[in-house]
Amino acid sequence: MKKVNIGLVGFGTVGQSLLKLFYKNKKLILQKAGCEIIFKSVCEKDHYKKNILQKIDKKISFTPDVNTIINDEYIDIIVELVGGVTVARDIILSSLKKGKHIVTANKAVLSQHWHEIFGLGNELNKMVYFESSVGAGIPLIQSLNEGLAANKIIRIIGILNGTTNYILSTMTTLNVSFKTALKTAQERGYAESNPSMDIEGFDTAHKLSILSSIAYSRWIKPQHIYIEGIENVELDDVKFANNFGYDIKLLGNAAIVKNKFMFEVRKFLVSKKHVFSSVTNEYNAILIEGDFSGPVTFIGRGAGGDTASSAVMSDIIYACKNIVNIVEGRFPYVFYDAKQKVETIKHDEICGYYYLRFITIDRPGVLAKISYILGKFEVSIASVYQQEPVEKIHRGASIIMLTHKIEEKKLLKAINEINKLDIILKKTVHIKILEEKGK
Amino acid sequence: MKKVNIGLVGFGTVGQSLLKLFYKNKKLILQKAGCEIIFKSVCEKDHYKKNILQKIDKKISFTPDVNTIINDEYIDIIVELVGGVTVARDIILSSLKKGKHIVTANKAVLSQHWHEIFGLGNELNKMVYFESSVGAGIPLIQSLNEGLAANKIIRIIGILNGTTNYILSTMTTLNVSFKTALKTAQERGYAESNPSMDIEGFDTAHKLSILSSIAYSRWIKPQHIYIEGIENVELDDVKFANNFGYDIKLLGNAAIVKNKFMFEVRKFLVSKKHVFSSVTNEYNAILIEGDFSGPVTFIGRGAGGDTASSAVMSDIIYACKNIVNIVEGRFPYVFYDAKQKVETIKHDEICGYYYLRFITIDRPGVLAKISYILGKFEVSIASVYQQEPVEKIHRGASIIMLTHKIEEKKLLKAINEINKLDIILKKTVHIKILEEKGK
Repeated sequence: MKKVNIGLVGFGTVGQSLLKLFYKNKKLILQKAGCEIIFKSVCEKDHYKKNILQKIDKKISFTPDVNTIINDEYIDIIVELVGGVTVARDIILSSLKKGKHIVTANKAVLSQHWHEIFGLGNELNKMVYFESSVGAGIPLIQSLNEGLAANKIIRIIGILNGTTNYILSTMTTLNVSFKTALKTAQERGYAESNPSMDIEGFDTAHKLSILSSIAYSRWIKPQHIYIEGIENVELDDVKFANNFGYDIKLLGNAAIVKNKFMFEVRKFLVSKKHVFSSVTNEYNAILIEGDFSGPVTFIGRGAGGDTASSAVMSDIIYACKNIVNIVEGRFPYVFYDAKQKVETIKHDEICGYYYLRFITIDRPGVLAKISYILGKFEVSIASVYQQEPVEKIHRGASIIMLTHKIEEKKLLKAINEINKLDIILKKTVHIKILEEKGK
Repeated sequence: MKKVNIGLVGFGTVGQSLLKLFYKNKKLILQKAGCEIIFKSVCEKDHYKKNILQKIDKKISFTPDVNTIINDEYIDIIVELVGGVTVARDIILSSLKKGKHIVTANKAVLSQHWHEIFGLGNELNKMVYFESSVGAGIPLIQSLNEGLAANKIIRIIGILNGTTNYILSTMTTLNVSFKTALKTAQERGYAESNPSMDIEGFDTAHKLSILSSIAYSRWIKPQHIYIEGIENVELDDVKFANNFGYDIKLLGNAAIVKNKFMFEVRKFLVSKKHVFSSVTNEYNAILIEGDFSGPVTFIGRGAGGDTASSAVMSDIIYACKNIVNIVEGRFPYVFYDAKQKVETIKHDEICGYYYLRFITIDRPGVLAKISYILGKFEVSIASVYQQEPVEKIHRGASIIMLTHKIEEKKLLKAINEINKLDIILKKTVHIKILEEKGK
């Protein structure tokens, strides 16, 4: 039976789960891989983790020097779990050059160096698999890349980040502020001590970039994507949205409008009847719509060592099967055309429905002033609601409006003019409303 | 560039959609398949369909005789879309013997002849792909078989049949009887003129058989599955369930209880907060839980020519890639051990929560009599509700109860004794309640 040697770079939560998974389900994994799999070496800067490794398997060598693994001629597959961009890029490119295949969980490095990584992989006939990079254990990459391969992809939309979903869910269910919810998320391991990649929307953008690059066979860069985060969401908005029958979710959204691409990461009001609304805490949900398949939605844990290791191990099995059959790298896993342009339409050139919250002084005539300006910019209102704020962090009243369909640019002009009124105490909140009520 | 010839057997809705899809997305399909794909012949008994075929492509030959295709030495892949069991089995086995690879959408024939079909395929190194057999366009088979390959599968539960889901949704939203809803489903093409395979639960059982056979690497036969249908669901039950915050869904359920397998197809009360509740009409939703991945849910259109053809085409692409790489059939797609036993525990030996509806004469003392017998069999009640029936198809009153956890066997004994009381006008309804409230 053929032997495939694995080198593991990065021994954090996912790396440790991976070995735990391997030893627990070894029999079925080897049966499906069709070969003997040997975890030969682990590279990790944190020397303390050597003890953890030795408790799992004393035969696996431990090194703080990644070159030991990259230069090890017996290693067939390098599993890159270090995260970040610069170092990870070096490891992946050097490993490919040394004839290794790659399994990576790293969305940031892929979304930012798509051409370089897959270009080199294809040139050298080496495999680069990355199932865990989006949606962790949800088999999303293979489903999009193979299961839906015959379709033109019409759109991709979803909750791609577990941290922000956890925070927004916590605000809703525990009735707490963003700050408190973030703290809870950090205490439970769902947010990092520096949470900006997640809460500012960059992680969602990286994942949207990867899914879109597969779907459209060209590199969709994070720079193609309009990005906003959830750091300014107030409990007031969560509560008001709830009153109207909506939840607030951070979604990645790729669509084709007027034959151009539109990519955005932003907060949405999602109807409580929509399937995304039932997806709470650290869970992810991604809808991919093909022209023949129709909408297909995938839901699962978007974060956590165990679920990510399930996807990493499936990549290893996939790679092993190809190695055993001596077809590794003969077929590029990801198709892309480096010459294809990415013509985009800006998110604010699109018509949509919006939730608005004006924070005003509590005085007669306020509504008239706001309505006058909205009318001037052709913003038509579907419903209005006025209530005392839930969070007493500013005086005054909140006026909530849901708009009819309007180009966002026009809406922003109106909001800009309204914000200059002396009756406005704080920047007006505007959040897009997801149109679909169904699946 | 290599050429792969396809023979299509059965030219109904899916077959026609398949050709429509192929010609619409040909460029991207060929790019992903890595070869030229030629639909060479179509076999169809209904001669009228020759005209339909010729409007699509005059070069494809049309024959009513399946042997013309099976014996055509130039054909590499046979796409079997005839449905049914006996004829389909013959076509698949004869084609394999003639050296063809198989793509099939046929859940009945696979679930009933698993060993024979995959055994022969593996023996002859021929591929048998069947992505569209469960969940139509949802990439479910590959996800379970490859994406979740590293996991022990803890359970599989879901809405696997679009017809029954459509009927139950229609009863709920249009407030109509089962009969009327079935008629609507038939008029809209979501139910066949003879709907028994769907509404009596057999179709769901076939699909559960396929998913379980993959998950547990052994043949789970329809005979291993307890099967009930939805043909006796009354509007009363739909409405009462709604009042309690539930929808009625027909689910396939595979679980491991006390180290034994439990397979059942039955009606469940599903909480309106559960993601399954938001899955209505012809849509399917399947939750697969791996020991490391955690629960992963797939939602999509479970029926329709377009969505099924998306999956059939992805199978063809998959097969073509293997043919191009000359590894076709070298690796079995489905693993199974013919010697593995299937030790099952019966559905009624398991403890669960239940919805009960007693249809009684409207007289004092009725509740006391029922409660006495329930108490005798240790059936403990969580809530009681009494109301006039919605459908006036029988006189009397309905008493609804939700039970605490109880072994179904005990519950059935109690119901059996209650049904003998002279105050009972009609057989007591009992429906299992799905425990999870979340995803």
